Amino acid sequence: MLTYDISARGKTPLYDYIYQCIRRDIIEGKLSSGERLPSKRQLAEHLHVGVITVTNAYAQLVTEGYVTSEEKRGYFVADVKRYRQPATKKTPKTKNKIEPDTGIIADFRMNRPRRKLFPVAMWNKLMRETLSEGGDALWRTVPWNGLVELREALSQYLRENRGIEATPEQIVIGAGTEYLYGRLMQLFGRATTFAIEDPGYKKFGVISESYGAPWKYVPIDSAGLKIDALEESGADVVHLSPANHFPTGIVMPITRRLDLFEWVNRVKKRYIIEDDYDSEFRYTGKFILPLYAEDTQGKVIYLNTFSKSIAPSLRISYMVLPEPLLRRYRETQSFYSSTVSSFEQATLARFIARGFFERHLARLKKYYREQRAAMLHALKCSPLITSGRAVIMERRAGTHFLLHVDTELSRSAIEERAKERGIALSFYADYFHAPLNEEGVTLVINYAAIARDAIEDVVSRLCDVFE
Amino acid sequence: MLTYDISARGKTPLYDYIYQCIRRDIIEGKLSSGERLPSKRQLAEHLHVGVITVTNAYAQLVTEGYVTSEEKRGYFVADVKRYRQPATKKTPKTKNKIEPDTGIIADFRMNRPRRKLFPVAMWNKLMRETLSEGGDALWRTVPWNGLVELREALSQYLRENRGIEATPEQIVIGAGTEYLYGRLMQLFGRATTFAIEDPGYKKFGVISESYGAPWKYVPIDSAGLKIDALEESGADVVHLSPANHFPTGIVMPITRRLDLFEWVNRVKKRYIIEDDYDSEFRYTGKFILPLYAEDTQGKVIYLNTFSKSIAPSLRISYMVLPEPLLRRYRETQSFYSSTVSSFEQATLARFIARGFFERHLARLKKYYREQRAAMLHALKCSPLITSGRAVIMERRAGTHFLLHVDTELSRSAIEERAKERGIALSFYADYFHAPLNEEGVTLVINYAAIARDAIEDVVSRLCDVFE
Repeated sequence: MLTYDISARGKTPLYDYIYQCIRRDIIEGKLSSGERLPSKRQLAEHLHVGVITVTNAYAQLVTEGYVTSEEKRGYFVADVKRYRQPATKKTPKTKNKIEPDTGIIADFRMNRPRRKLFPVAMWNKLMRETLSEGGDALWRTVPWNGLVELREALSQYLRENRGIEATPEQIVIGAGTEYLYGRLMQLFGRATTFAIEDPGYKKFGVISESYGAPWKYVPIDSAGLKIDALEESGADVVHLSPANHFPTGIVMPITRRLDLFEWVNRVKKRYIIEDDYDSEFRYTGKFILPLYAEDTQGKVIYLNTFSKSIAPSLRISYMVLPEPLLRRYRETQSFYSSTVSSFEQATLARFIARGFFERHLARLKKYYREQRAAMLHALKCSPLITSGRAVIMERRAGTHFLLHVDTELSRSAIEERAKERGIALSFYADYFHAPLNEEGVTLVINYAAIARDAIEDVVSRLCDVFE
Repeated sequence: MLTYDISARGKTPLYDYIYQCIRRDIIEGKLSSGERLPSKRQLAEHLHVGVITVTNAYAQLVTEGYVTSEEKRGYFVADVKRYRQPATKKTPKTKNKIEPDTGIIADFRMNRPRRKLFPVAMWNKLMRETLSEGGDALWRTVPWNGLVELREALSQYLRENRGIEATPEQIVIGAGTEYLYGRLMQLFGRATTFAIEDPGYKKFGVISESYGAPWKYVPIDSAGLKIDALEESGADVVHLSPANHFPTGIVMPITRRLDLFEWVNRVKKRYIIEDDYDSEFRYTGKFILPLYAEDTQGKVIYLNTFSKSIAPSLRISYMVLPEPLLRRYRETQSFYSSTVSSFEQATLARFIARGFFERHLARLKKYYREQRAAMLHALKCSPLITSGRAVIMERRAGTHFLLHVDTELSRSAIEERAKERGIALSFYADYFHAPLNEEGVTLVINYAAIARDAIEDVVSRLCDVFE
């Protein structure tokens, strides 16, 4: 008869303890395949426990298949001779992966909106309102293309601020631009050849590749993407940022836009993916009209994100699909569930619809404009510029500019010397596919995240790098 | 000389109005290609505006390329004869797409956690704490695999509640299970053949297809997936829910699990994707150990979601990758940015780490247990069961059970009659690939969302359908 030391069970429920003992005996072969277990009543009496306890233990063994129950005959041990106990993995005690302090005081590699510029109190108030007033819809599955409130708010925002006429039905919300690119890859399919700008947003190419779609680099000139090269590339769909090319800041002039439209309208399967990222930040004049607003043939897909305008950690992007593509998108991609939580969609919808987003953008823009002025001023007063060894290339837009430095230093020497001075640099050459054979070096100065009161110091360190 | 009625500008800024007038004249050909514009000073005097206003108007025209500026020579009209004004689309006034009231009082097609069970106040408190205490990390780009706080909380939760030993480094957070499936498709590649259970979660097949990967249906028997059929299918990676097969609720017994492990361990490239969806809801006995916990060779990828346990509108799922796959995943998939906002990840981390999630689950489980009891009771007292024309098939788990009804009615007749009575039904046959040739009809009774006080009425309507 099965005998277990019931007193050794600690805090484990009685039925569970008995279940575990029998299971172990089965795994270890002490109870062998086909053997009949004592009846529930017998075992209960033997162990001095209630019949219900044994019933529960047996039920769990039956559910998991260690024991089979045969009506009127009893309980029999299953054949689990093949069972191997998994080695008890020692869980490495979690290293709280705090980023090592590398001594970097200024990181020009990326911009991130400063936390203090985020309207925490307002966001929280809207989130609270959303949670308490949001109604049942908030707890339901989100529509595949996103909450209607957010699509409505975006439709109005785009009309008033970007010159784009798009109905809420044309808008699709997604968890980041990369996610939406994935959907577009699947929409167009692997037989489609994509084109990206060189230099430009290389990651689009990496994503195409991961979806198995071919892609080509197309060079730019001072007016942006070269259309003859685009034609020669054989590409069907081109990704670009005509209002603010990354990272040069080039605005594509109307004549080149007309060439681009001619290219796209010439062949039925051709489309343009317009990434309007960063377009909110222009410091002089009015906003640059997106291609989408000038498209007469339904050939432009417009994308934008809140990574830059709110926070990179808020994973919300959206796209506007032209009417002819919309149907195809709905047919082939709408089986995918929405990837953004309804709580954040609803909060963002309120944030936009009540005008807080525009106010926030105005504040951000003011901050960046001042930041840019401070950075340009510090550079222009620095020996790098006054000596004529460096030139600033900037377009009064975005949150970065280019700085060309006349130097004999190799890239690795520059990086090393910058690191010693607490600076991490971003190189223009990295945005090129083809090697950039330049005299000297061109840096991408992402200035948004540099602390204002550190600018003088950072610029002086930057000068030191090239001394 | 250009003459415009400045008084007609309304609220448009002066420079913008002049820019728009000149742009229109260029587009309409009133100013022709190559023509020289008046100097800034001349035009300013002519229009009685400041030189700075004209400077700004010209600057915008130059930026957009409607005009080119030649040093010392002046401003010249560009060639935009090809320009076509986009037709002013009439934006269809947004139809506030409120779902039409279809008169459905009971929808058995899907479960959704009831809103009132969601701990709104606690969630909001944690969200507020997160926003105010979260620190700079919250405003930075989220690590590709998710916030470390959430991965740590999940690691501990899995150890204590699911018998899974996984380090935070093995966990990847994603915006929904479908999103993570997409990453796995790309990890394994299009040369991999997937297998899914028949009946089962068909959407996995649709997703495979959209990624261009072949997939096979493999039938189940009373112990779950048939391993000989799996072997014959030639599949490399199988998707299944061994702790609670969908929609039958079958628990895969240990003997079948051992067969499955033998299958997976036999060939290097074979893997198991274990979808542990719904496993939190077992009403008798203890939880069923996931395959992941019994895997000795690093062959099981574990997935779970908060759709069911918190809300379908919270788009957070996670997976645990076994060590050998982790490196490959990191190498090939970590370039994708995280798809879940840091605010919700950090809030969920607190919710789990402080024990609120377990308490919430206990409450949900109690609610569902009572709901299930009420539904079973009402059915057992109903003429459908008392007359012997229907049989309940349920496994004391999940949030649905199967109901087989002996009837001569066709499916469309059943649907029609149900609709007339305000009921939307879910059919077991829909989860099958192969046609299910059954006598009568088997319904999937998703009872979670039915209002408690409506159960009697709903069951009586259901009986009426088959009268």
